[in-house]
Amino acid sequence: MTLDVGVLGYRFMGKAHANALARLPMFFPDAPAVERSVLVGRDEEALAEAADRLGFESTATDWRDVIDDVDAFYNLGPNHVHAEPSIAALEAGTPVFCEKPLAPTLESAEEMAAAARSADVPSGCAFNYRFVPAIQYAKELLERGELGEIHHVRGRYLQDWLVDPEAPWSWRNDEEMAGSGALGDLGAHTVDLVRFLAGEVDRVSGQLKTFVDERPVEGGDETRPVTVDDAYTAQIELESGAIGTLEASRFATGHKNDHTIEIQGSEGSLRFSLERLNELELLREGDRGYETILVTDENDPYVDHWWPPGHVIGWEHTFVHENYEFLSAVESDGEFEPSFEDGLAAQRILAAIAASDERGEWVSLE
Amino acid sequence: MTLDVGVLGYRFMGKAHANALARLPMFFPDAPAVERSVLVGRDEEALAEAADRLGFESTATDWRDVIDDVDAFYNLGPNHVHAEPSIAALEAGTPVFCEKPLAPTLESAEEMAAAARSADVPSGCAFNYRFVPAIQYAKELLERGELGEIHHVRGRYLQDWLVDPEAPWSWRNDEEMAGSGALGDLGAHTVDLVRFLAGEVDRVSGQLKTFVDERPVEGGDETRPVTVDDAYTAQIELESGAIGTLEASRFATGHKNDHTIEIQGSEGSLRFSLERLNELELLREGDRGYETILVTDENDPYVDHWWPPGHVIGWEHTFVHENYEFLSAVESDGEFEPSFEDGLAAQRILAAIAASDERGEWVSLE
Amino acid sequence: MTLDVGVLGYRFMGKAHANALARLPMFFPDAPAVERSVLVGRDEEALAEAADRLGFESTATDWRDVIDDVDAFYNLGPNHVHAEPSIAALEAGTPVFCEKPLAPTLESAEEMAAAARSADVPSGCAFNYRFVPAIQYAKELLERGELGEIHHVRGRYLQDWLVDPEAPWSWRNDEEMAGSGALGDLGAHTVDLVRFLAGEVDRVSGQLKTFVDERPVEGGDETRPVTVDDAYTAQIELESGAIGTLEASRFATGHKNDHTIEIQGSEGSLRFSLERLNELELLREGDRGYETILVTDENDPYVDHWWPPGHVIGWEHTFVHENYEFLSAVESDGEFEPSFEDGLAAQRILAAIAASDERGEWVSLE
Amino acid sequence: MTLDVGVLGYRFMGKAHANALARLPMFFPDAPAVERSVLVGRDEEALAEAADRLGFESTATDWRDVIDDVDAFYNLGPNHVHAEPSIAALEAGTPVFCEKPLAPTLESAEEMAAAARSADVPSGCAFNYRFVPAIQYAKELLERGELGEIHHVRGRYLQDWLVDPEAPWSWRNDEEMAGSGALGDLGAHTVDLVRFLAGEVDRVSGQLKTFVDERPVEGGDETRPVTVDDAYTAQIELESGAIGTLEASRFATGHKNDHTIEIQGSEGSLRFSLERLNELELLREGDRGYETILVTDENDPYVDHWWPPGHVIGWEHTFVHENYEFLSAVESDGEFEPSFEDGLAAQRILAAIAASDERGEWVSLE
Repeated sequence: MTLDVGVLGYRFMGKAHANALARLPMFFPDAPAVERSVLVGRDEEALAEAADRLGFESTATDWRDVIDDVDAFYNLGPNHVHAEPSIAALEAGTPVFCEKPLAPTLESAEEMAAAARSADVPSGCAFNYRFVPAIQYAKELLERGELGEIHHVRGRYLQDWLVDPEAPWSWRNDEEMAGSGALGDLGAHTVDLVRFLAGEVDRVSGQLKTFVDERPVEGGDETRPVTVDDAYTAQIELESGAIGTLEASRFATGHKNDHTIEIQGSEGSLRFSLERLNELELLREGDRGYETILVTDENDPYVDHWWPPGHVIGWEHTFVHENYEFLSAVESDGEFEPSFEDGLAAQRILAAIAASDERGEWVSLE
Repeated sequence: MTLDVGVLGYRFMGKAHANALARLPMFFPDAPAVERSVLVGRDEEALAEAADRLGFESTATDWRDVIDDVDAFYNLGPNHVHAEPSIAALEAGTPVFCEKPLAPTLESAEEMAAAARSADVPSGCAFNYRFVPAIQYAKELLERGELGEIHHVRGRYLQDWLVDPEAPWSWRNDEEMAGSGALGDLGAHTVDLVRFLAGEVDRVSGQLKTFVDERPVEGGDETRPVTVDDAYTAQIELESGAIGTLEASRFATGHKNDHTIEIQGSEGSLRFSLERLNELELLREGDRGYETILVTDENDPYVDHWWPPGHVIGWEHTFVHENYEFLSAVESDGEFEPSFEDGLAAQRILAAIAASDERGEWVSLE
Repeated sequence: MTLDVGVLGYRFMGKAHANALARLPMFFPDAPAVERSVLVGRDEEALAEAADRLGFESTATDWRDVIDDVDAFYNLGPNHVHAEPSIAALEAGTPVFCEKPLAPTLESAEEMAAAARSADVPSGCAFNYRFVPAIQYAKELLERGELGEIHHVRGRYLQDWLVDPEAPWSWRNDEEMAGSGALGDLGAHTVDLVRFLAGEVDRVSGQLKTFVDERPVEGGDETRPVTVDDAYTAQIELESGAIGTLEASRFATGHKNDHTIEIQGSEGSLRFSLERLNELELLREGDRGYETILVTDENDPYVDHWWPPGHVIGWEHTFVHENYEFLSAVESDGEFEPSFEDGLAAQRILAAIAASDERGEWVSLE
Repeated sequence: MTLDVGVLGYRFMGKAHANALARLPMFFPDAPAVERSVLVGRDEEALAEAADRLGFESTATDWRDVIDDVDAFYNLGPNHVHAEPSIAALEAGTPVFCEKPLAPTLESAEEMAAAARSADVPSGCAFNYRFVPAIQYAKELLERGELGEIHHVRGRYLQDWLVDPEAPWSWRNDEEMAGSGALGDLGAHTVDLVRFLAGEVDRVSGQLKTFVDERPVEGGDETRPVTVDDAYTAQIELESGAIGTLEASRFATGHKNDHTIEIQGSEGSLRFSLERLNELELLREGDRGYETILVTDENDPYVDHWWPPGHVIGWEHTFVHENYEFLSAVESDGEFEPSFEDGLAAQRILAAIAASDERGEWVSLE
């Protein structure tokens, strides 16, 4: 059986997932066979060009024509088009894989998760950083208790592409379309990794900041208001009693895609940085300092599918891993995590951070 | 003229300052001549041994007998004995150099600062990390505007000496004597560096955490309650509009004395770590990444007093620098910073963090 | 026009190149269209499985049947089968791309280069590390003279897969089949990068070492002799007057694929490590320390074909780049470097190192 | 009993040792009592100023007047004045501590070692880097066999103070006075650490290089010839069968005092860098990567004399440690290492490297 996949969106994420689908046969021979069946978008010319380049068999300008006919629907559009097509697809019994954050508002995210709950098919929220081998390895260590009881969690995601006040306005600066700024775009990843590695969050205190209030529209004299945050900070307390800080920015000069996670437990500690994603810094019981581990050994997660020890992989490989897992779940009608439920859980934390910022006080997750 | 210095306290800080005083003549020939005149403590035997080893001419068991007779009084005792002797000395017209945090409570700190204000002599709060060459160099860069407008500040101070629940109780675990835990002991340093490098804090949100509620008393079966924090986190907003996070812990497994400061501005960024105190990571306009700079060149702050480029100095050298500056101010009847005023300003921030923790909301500094 | 490619070898290198060929259409749309036409090997069953997995249209057990029919012939077999098929293909007017080192002996390499010289088609020696963006960027800097006159070059390639004396014997331990050990396998890469970045080598002094003289044959009681080096060291002097050291080992405990190149010039310095291949450490005039640069910006070499800044690539991407360049040269009947001439130049240096080891004296390249 | 120490030389090394002597009482209470008795030099004015600043009781312009009257004689002058006063002092029965390299020529070094052998008193060659806590810790690990059988040794010492061709001429550029350049000045340290940590050297192959042939004399129009090496490289083979490379330069742009040692053994590996002298990178059996260890724990070598964990020490502390050990040996009439014998052993290796450079072939140590 070959799975027909329909994909909404053909820019950055469209390319990342198309590449992932294309690479499965050579490296994951036990993955289901997949057809890049139909690519969905509105601009017919750009769409045709993209479909050709990304290896899709056909195109469609209305997702409504697609969701019934495919074995899996990928929603890779901007945040404000996540809800409607995803819910419709799920209602049609089609498994859905949706980019993060799940939705621009908590309400949308709740509807999407409800739809996933009702549908008897896998849903996935594309938190691809769970599928970094070093993160999977960290997860194993934490589950085996090698770090003991967790006391501290720290997550930050630093970029700098908006530090220039003349950097042009885009949908990512607009609350209607994006929901939030650094918080949703970057913080969603951080919050998901915190949940994945360290457990559920009990309460949060947050701060949102917009450094530049309006930006020029590309190719014109106009400016448009920035209605989302350029950066956020948060404090958290986990259900376990661990405490932590979170942070993201689009104004962190010199940082391109600097997503770091740190955990300190009673028996050990770890640090991870996305810009060195093949590495994990790990301090285990008996160690005197952090070991800088190259997580590229044959028995490291997913590594046996790729290359010999020391032959590093890149950012895009995380998409191959998550597509492999999601499509395997679709084929076997199994479970996939992170699901829409995980997408919603992350969204709740982001919404609580935003609410805390507005109210100036701690907000509990219940 | 030789300055007679009286020192209260002969343990860790006593040794650090005695060493600093002893090294001035060889390395800072223009420093005032100094006599380690009298060492103050209660345990006569231990005191005599310490005075001998640390090079003091005499000892006293009551600071009241000392404060009038010396040209400078160093208060290096536990936090709860900072206020009374310091105020008395200032009232006697004697310059006072006091260890940080200035006092266990904000009230005490305010009284101390008031006494310093009334007295017409220099006062100093021993935030020695201002005197790291790399920090002084960072300060120069920031004052020249080389990093532009500051957007982000991050400070954390991680230690792990209490992560073992069986680590014995000490005065540092007691609110009466210490005022607070990681917050005052470690956070005071961080808060001072933030003020020194990035400017005044406008508001804070804080979280205090005690992971272990009671600890065994050394050499007995008894336990005593831990009434201070083992760790804290905070969010801050500066008057400039910059935002940040602060954090300290005594439970950060694998971290011994890991005090880091990071700043991102519109034109550049910097990072500093106390465990590599000879280095500054700096990203200037036009750079594509952080430069790892060894701040040991002849024209780096204080370095010409020591050794040729690349010959690194240690933690203790910061004490030599601050003693040099303080005693020079005493001799010339000049100004010294960080003063009791700076000690108080730091204390206000720490108190606001603690108040925020209690109230669950942001607290403004006014 | 579609280029039909025939590939000899279907293990590690076969997979690396097949993957590279498969990825060209999506990421290098201006690359020539390529058909993975025929895969060549001796074990029919394994060959059929590999051809299926790696996306080849057909298979052949004799390369003689292939070299005439394809537009490019890839020789990815063990070193001792590099010469004959490559020469035959070139004589048939077929462009040849051959893995490194070019041949097990200098004589073979000379014959291969002679054949390439006679044939009027592109030849390539697969020194893929030239195609790391950071290395290309370094090359640009060096060509623009940003590092000034080069004084020092340092190259080392450390692995540890033979440090266990019980690690099994393989063709890589046999002089007849491999020519040499760490010297040819790893040193060939180093020597090529030295030539590429720093210029021609004038003379060498070398040392070869075999730590373990015989190894067990897998799955038996037998042992076989190790007739190649486990490690080598060398000193070099370049034509420019720069000096340097080279080194490689299969016994460097803890190092998996640790290939580093360092250059110091009169105006600046650089360092590169294959295990962090997205980074270049660069010290330019006016810098006070090495900048750690993430070479993932849009205008960095090849990067615009992949992902936004900070989204790191992996080891395998170097193969995509070199295949893109080689096949573009084949299509346009243009030049490709590194050619067989470069493969021969590297071989001459390796042979001189081995000769120096035997004679105990410096050996000049002429 | 108080040891009277006489010191020849009052510049860089004079200051380093005077400081070390001054710090013993406070930090090493069990060290012998020491009087900085007499400082020897030729320029009376400068000498008087130095004696005052460095805490010496008296001065002398002729070492002959001193060697009989002191309990230990420190020879800290330029290399060409090492031999005569040291030998005379030893013949007078006075223990001698001499800076490295032991002498400008092998012949001088042999005479000095012979004099030390005849004298029944301790002699010391000031290879201070043996006394870095991280190096002592490494030595312990190696002696316990924790790294197994050593296969690889690597040592390099990079500085850049001569990279500017206009940097002025000094005695360090003159063969008569210095013996050699980077080789003796920097290489002596490397060679001693290799012997200390990894064992005796069996044979060497070396290369010396002078990049700039003449240099301006400071404050004049004249230039003088540079008759020593600006840089050297070497290959070595140890008696144990381990192999290695050595290197030093005064032309390594961006490197100030970058002395690194690396060792790979069958069970583990280590790396050390002088610019981060509080750290040791260590890979032990069972580790997956190098641990970055802060060698500042209470039971690390010498650390209990100084500060709590994480409070780093500097370059100068190595002098305190070596003075402590040397003077303790003087007091107890015990053994001290590194002795003149070790100084001679290092010199033999340096001489063999220079001879190898001249002859173009390997040179054996016997």
